[in-house]
Amino acid sequence: MPKAEERVIVPEVVVERLPLYVRALKELAQRRVEVVSSRELGERLHTTPAQIRKDLSSFGRFGKQGSGYNVQTLLTALQSILGLDREWNVVVVGVGRLGRAIISYPGFAPEGFRIMAALDNDPRQIGQVVGGLVVQPVSELPRLVKEQGVHIAIVAVPRDQAQEVIDLLVQGGIRAILNYAPITPKVPNGVRVQNIDPVLAMQSMTYYLVAGERRQAKPSPAVR
Amino acid sequence: MPKAEERVIVPEVVVERLPLYVRALKELAQRRVEVVSSRELGERLHTTPAQIRKDLSSFGRFGKQGSGYNVQTLLTALQSILGLDREWNVVVVGVGRLGRAIISYPGFAPEGFRIMAALDNDPRQIGQVVGGLVVQPVSELPRLVKEQGVHIAIVAVPRDQAQEVIDLLVQGGIRAILNYAPITPKVPNGVRVQNIDPVLAMQSMTYYLVAGERRQAKPSPAVR
Repeated sequence: MPKAEERVIVPEVVVERLPLYVRALKELAQRRVEVVSSRELGERLHTTPAQIRKDLSSFGRFGKQGSGYNVQTLLTALQSILGLDREWNVVVVGVGRLGRAIISYPGFAPEGFRIMAALDNDPRQIGQVVGGLVVQPVSELPRLVKEQGVHIAIVAVPRDQAQEVIDLLVQGGIRAILNYAPITPKVPNGVRVQNIDPVLAMQSMTYYLVAGERRQAKPSPAVR
Repeated sequence: MPKAEERVIVPEVVVERLPLYVRALKELAQRRVEVVSSRELGERLHTTPAQIRKDLSSFGRFGKQGSGYNVQTLLTALQSILGLDREWNVVVVGVGRLGRAIISYPGFAPEGFRIMAALDNDPRQIGQVVGGLVVQPVSELPRLVKEQGVHIAIVAVPRDQAQEVIDLLVQGGIRAILNYAPITPKVPNGVRVQNIDPVLAMQSMTYYLVAGERRQAKPSPAVR
């Protein structure tokens, strides 16, 4: 086993890449691959071997020069570093169409994310059953945090309610928020937010589409 | 107006931040703010004034020393750079629960992303009407690309079908893919992919939750 070094400050971009490492290593482990080189790992993750070695060096010594990484050892270590060796309790706030799609998404539970409550402030939604959960008012959140331990909140409310809901979540003790509303919410230090915004993702791709068009000097689509 | 410089190679991380600039500038413009400093813009985007100035300097001279940026000028320029001054035709592939939530999402059209077709390979879905669109087989894609111009495809199919569907999209002429399936798809050079994966986003937040717990030395939740 690698000797775990004291936790140093790891750049956020590295932390955000680690789940990709875990996913790639899981696939390799399923295929009974025992050892992987930084070159192979780099190809899978569309990055360079040097980047892989640099990223992993933040967390201790995982590989032996020239012999690659032991897949299972590295996987177990990264899962522990990321806290993926346990269950996390998740609440979903907002049970409109998006919230319902999130609650029924089959990809969370196998990764240890247990959706244990659904909250909404719309009186028409409260009391309804969504994905086996009775929808509760958002005001129940502090009680849920205290009594059952809630680690992560997923926010799927409309844009104009998002900041208010996020303020309530933070007051209620939530320290990690996955935000689907198209805002960059304000949160105090120590609260982590990940924003999921398909419009922003598309808007950075159009930059490259425009650049490609200019290179090819094709006629451009109609201006709005 | 700033003099547009010749397009240089701009780092991807900068391109991915630009839509956030556009969103912040739009909010300022709506509030009739005429001039904004890099300090104010930095506060809104949770970054430093130096980062703002550096990012924007890639695209030419937008600000005057000491007097800040003209909101409308900068907004118009960035919209043009990102191709946000036109309409983009989008197809959604996969009309399960997630695909339907995407098709009915009200946030795309106001930003110029027009969902103009819904595709699926499930015979039970083909012919159904989803959000005003008749679901067509994926094999229709090349025709749609040729006859109507499709710029972006949103992939909302299950994990085990995603790579195959993405291969078909690329063969059909698609150069920008917003992928919701939990894989890192392989695509040829020149094709842009943005992956939207809530599990990966949560997995990087748990790193910080674990780090916070260690700092506070609280008892940790049950190990799985």
